[in-house]
Amino acid sequence: MRVVVPFGGRSPKTRLASFFDADERRDFAISMLRDVLDAIVDAGGDPTVVADAPVEVEAPVTVDDRPLSAVVEDELGSDDPVAVVMADLALATPAALTRLFETDGDVVAVPGLGGGTNALVVRQPEFSVDYHGASILDHRRIARDAGLSFVELDSMRLAIDVDEPTDIVEVLLHGAGRSRAWLSDAGVTLECGSGRVEAVRRRR
Amino acid sequence: MRVVVPFGGRSPKTRLASFFDADERRDFAISMLRDVLDAIVDAGGDPTVVADAPVEVEAPVTVDDRPLSAVVEDELGSDDPVAVVMADLALATPAALTRLFETDGDVVAVPGLGGGTNALVVRQPEFSVDYHGASILDHRRIARDAGLSFVELDSMRLAIDVDEPTDIVEVLLHGAGRSRAWLSDAGVTLECGSGRVEAVRRRR
Repeated sequence: MRVVVPFGGRSPKTRLASFFDADERRDFAISMLRDVLDAIVDAGGDPTVVADAPVEVEAPVTVDDRPLSAVVEDELGSDDPVAVVMADLALATPAALTRLFETDGDVVAVPGLGGGTNALVVRQPEFSVDYHGASILDHRRIARDAGLSFVELDSMRLAIDVDEPTDIVEVLLHGAGRSRAWLSDAGVTLECGSGRVEAVRRRR
Repeated sequence: MRVVVPFGGRSPKTRLASFFDADERRDFAISMLRDVLDAIVDAGGDPTVVADAPVEVEAPVTVDDRPLSAVVEDELGSDDPVAVVMADLALATPAALTRLFETDGDVVAVPGLGGGTNALVVRQPEFSVDYHGASILDHRRIARDAGLSFVELDSMRLAIDVDEPTDIVEVLLHGAGRSRAWLSDAGVTLECGSGRVEAVRRRR
């Protein structure tokens, strides 16, 4: 399946500014992108990156600096199914993506924490995207209004897009690839308190 | 399958104190417990609640105020499989729990956000539990040390235990039962900003 991976590489991951400076955040974002591309290929997908600035990865890259919804919209509209997978799903595994690609439905969506839409499979050209705000609610509505079936896939690995410091905890707990190694190299470790585990960075 | 549901009803959900007072938090916690019990029954499970104080629900309740690990430990050790499902999994559906009950493995675990273990199926009496800290890591290790297979189930619906204000967002976005209705009745609604959606409460 053709898989579009949008990547905002200009000033990525600003909500991680308490942990990493701008160069580090870009570096970490590219590590996550590479992990996602590997998982897509291992799941049998054929990835293309659409980035707002050039980036060197082992997949074709198109540079397009329009807003996310416009960029993705241009990739839809064909009769062939197309998937859209966010570049910051550092916990994505081939197994989780295989479940996504193999789930039946005119539109299959994976909700992200906080109302986002972390991944989509679109099998009908009538569907359109709107990534602003609580996009999972918009995508439900858009599919319903177009008379399309809308199936939500229940996956924690694909629900966690790494945006916030709490998401880093999940990469340390459950990640395996470059992203996790990058965090370890940066001195980020887990700290257990009374509630949920937290991530802390030891500066060197 | 026998399903143990531990419930801390004395002073539940203290991390939601910015939203709800103590009585409200207990009321909300019981709504979630009832939703979880319904989902377990609909998935073919046979639930028993183990609570630190009496609570009236449509399932047998044992009162036991020892720490969580000790309480659950006493429920293990039989040759029959037993599941342990937390009482605050407000997004649990029969489908998600059926996946849990049907996944093969000596021990099947569902990681919760922040390192917890939100649900377990234990099929071998050699396994033991340790719910302190990043329990998913401890449970991985305990299973490995005992030579047992340890399978982690990838489910967002079971990964979200409702502890923090951000979890309330997920109940409003994806919940369906009493818990969601309770939040709506309490005046809690979604607010979209530039990042993840937030929950806000309008006092009346």
